[in-house]
Amino acid sequence: MPVITLTSDWGITDHYLGAVKGAILSRHPNAVIVDISHKVDHYDIRQAAFIIRNAFPSFPEGTIHILAIDSIESDEHPHIVVKAKGHYFIGADSGLFSLILDEEPEKIVALRVLQDTGYFTFPARDRFAKVACMLAEGNPIEELGEQIPSLVVKLPLLASIKEDKIEGRVMYIDSYKNVYLNITEKDFRKTVGNKPFTIQLKRTGDSIDTIVKAYGDVPEGEMCALFSSSGYLEIALNRDKASSLLNLHIDDTVSVIIGE
Amino acid sequence: MPVITLTSDWGITDHYLGAVKGAILSRHPNAVIVDISHKVDHYDIRQAAFIIRNAFPSFPEGTIHILAIDSIESDEHPHIVVKAKGHYFIGADSGLFSLILDEEPEKIVALRVLQDTGYFTFPARDRFAKVACMLAEGNPIEELGEQIPSLVVKLPLLASIKEDKIEGRVMYIDSYKNVYLNITEKDFRKTVGNKPFTIQLKRTGDSIDTIVKAYGDVPEGEMCALFSSSGYLEIALNRDKASSLLNLHIDDTVSVIIGE
Amino acid sequence: MPVITLTSDWGITDHYLGAVKGAILSRHPNAVIVDISHKVDHYDIRQAAFIIRNAFPSFPEGTIHILAIDSIESDEHPHIVVKAKGHYFIGADSGLFSLILDEEPEKIVALRVLQDTGYFTFPARDRFAKVACMLAEGNPIEELGEQIPSLVVKLPLLASIKEDKIEGRVMYIDSYKNVYLNITEKDFRKTVGNKPFTIQLKRTGDSIDTIVKAYGDVPEGEMCALFSSSGYLEIALNRDKASSLLNLHIDDTVSVIIGE
Repeated sequence: MPVITLTSDWGITDHYLGAVKGAILSRHPNAVIVDISHKVDHYDIRQAAFIIRNAFPSFPEGTIHILAIDSIESDEHPHIVVKAKGHYFIGADSGLFSLILDEEPEKIVALRVLQDTGYFTFPARDRFAKVACMLAEGNPIEELGEQIPSLVVKLPLLASIKEDKIEGRVMYIDSYKNVYLNITEKDFRKTVGNKPFTIQLKRTGDSIDTIVKAYGDVPEGEMCALFSSSGYLEIALNRDKASSLLNLHIDDTVSVIIGE
Repeated sequence: MPVITLTSDWGITDHYLGAVKGAILSRHPNAVIVDISHKVDHYDIRQAAFIIRNAFPSFPEGTIHILAIDSIESDEHPHIVVKAKGHYFIGADSGLFSLILDEEPEKIVALRVLQDTGYFTFPARDRFAKVACMLAEGNPIEELGEQIPSLVVKLPLLASIKEDKIEGRVMYIDSYKNVYLNITEKDFRKTVGNKPFTIQLKRTGDSIDTIVKAYGDVPEGEMCALFSSSGYLEIALNRDKASSLLNLHIDDTVSVIIGE
Repeated sequence: MPVITLTSDWGITDHYLGAVKGAILSRHPNAVIVDISHKVDHYDIRQAAFIIRNAFPSFPEGTIHILAIDSIESDEHPHIVVKAKGHYFIGADSGLFSLILDEEPEKIVALRVLQDTGYFTFPARDRFAKVACMLAEGNPIEELGEQIPSLVVKLPLLASIKEDKIEGRVMYIDSYKNVYLNITEKDFRKTVGNKPFTIQLKRTGDSIDTIVKAYGDVPEGEMCALFSSSGYLEIALNRDKASSLLNLHIDDTVSVIIGE
């Protein structure tokens, strides 16, 4: 029985989460259901994409991910199921899928599976749960609807890479106030190589000129840059609780100046 | 093995939640435990009832629901287990059960099962977990205590229905600031029929004169009324993040004026 | 298959929680994973210790507890796995283990298991999940590393006990604003015996001179003292939602004056 994960912007107070789990368990009493996050900001598909990108690869191949963020169907945002990197993803094609996946998915299917009720405000319970269980039972993705050629594309904000400068943005800030930039380890290493560099945080005026391996490589309360396990450049404070130094916001510019 | 659900006002920081799950797993290492919500406002059995009403029917028949809100036993609020609509519910008979269930339960049993410790501040761990496992093992409900004829009744605030006007109240506000009224789809359809109507939100001065099928049937940021999948009339904003328009509170009056 | 529990200071928004569960399920698709709490204040090992102390004994013997609070490895804080009271605990030896366990553990092993990635910011996913699964498969703890003789010791704040006075501190405040003191039931009973006593809350000026069995033994909104199921003296308000009376903070002094 494959794992079914749930990611949403429901929060954890209302009945939505329980209702969807109940709907899955009603079809498969032995389903293994895992919450990825239900605290995505309402309708924030960029934040959702970051969380899912960084969580889904840890799951076993064949895992089915229900994406319940901005999931009401419309002509522009059809309900789809996608097979990519050995995983299945179910949701509304709002651009979220394109933000999660770097490459073209193996298969994209516009759902033809009817939902169970005449209400159209709760597709995760009334349609996605059903589709997830159909996939879990081994139904081929092709039987769930009509194959379509491409996803709705929402472009991620890419870092601008020049020979002497990488200009990136703050992409995500976690609960510790660690800051993830849209500068990949790969791009950084290729562009900077062995040259000296300075990472400049415009808003705060701070700068960092070395990359460490772990938070603990700088004294407590000090700022450091490192390549996080998510593959992105990360700015963090070693064990600082207040995080007062790191007053950065989503989309703030961070530059890497290369050379002396 | 039936599913066991947990609903409480514990929040998710303290040890209570883990301790109850541990107590269940100590008896049944294969138990399937599902959280419905632990963010009910402290002692708020009306809020709890709304959440449970809207979540439990999605679960398979035979599911056992532990209700740990205001659950300390007293002479007025005995610990009971209830069988209704094919589900089991365990908790203190504070009125919560009557708010969850529309009809008389099939069976009501005052628990005689002794709890496991001499402490009386944590019945969910020390008594309800044990009772849930006894039910899960197939023990008949009658063996858990003495059958009693009726529940402690807490009356829900009912909408007042007249020929030319339905006067309802705000019953629940979800994390999106969607507002659920205590006006059922059934009552609305029966009373309003095909006549024109105006839904008046007293506090805000707003009014709505049409029912839509989905949030997306109105432009973004606009208010709409629809029948939610919970069976109640719902007032919502289509994808509005600020929800500034919808400054309603629990118990606020909302009227449906029928006719021109 | 033993239960694996997770306790952390990650919160529930970010991808960390999902990633660790995925890593466990990738090794053991049938693993039973239970969240104890992810809302520990960042790096607060005293708070974490209280939560874990009060939750772990409810779990079955053989349960494996991943402790992901302040878990980056350093020379002073090696990654260890501990066997104590029939349970396994995995984490960084920051003093947390000594705060959880009253007695010397049966075994302490400094991990030699290599982690799966070259990143050193996410040991729960890259090392602890792997170690938990190795234990779950039945690998003996001795094979996971080198046995070491003792834990890093962080002393809990102990109550000062004199013949005529116990001076304790606020150790934990739960979401209801119930206050747990570092005065054990055992010490209280031994020292106070049948003598009259007054519990004095310095900050608020309140005092209590009786111990009750349950919150409901005092009128609604009134303060009471009782021995909680955690084994500590607890000060609580019966069903008070505002908790305005109980304006206590962690580490505040509370005295028990013994005799008239």
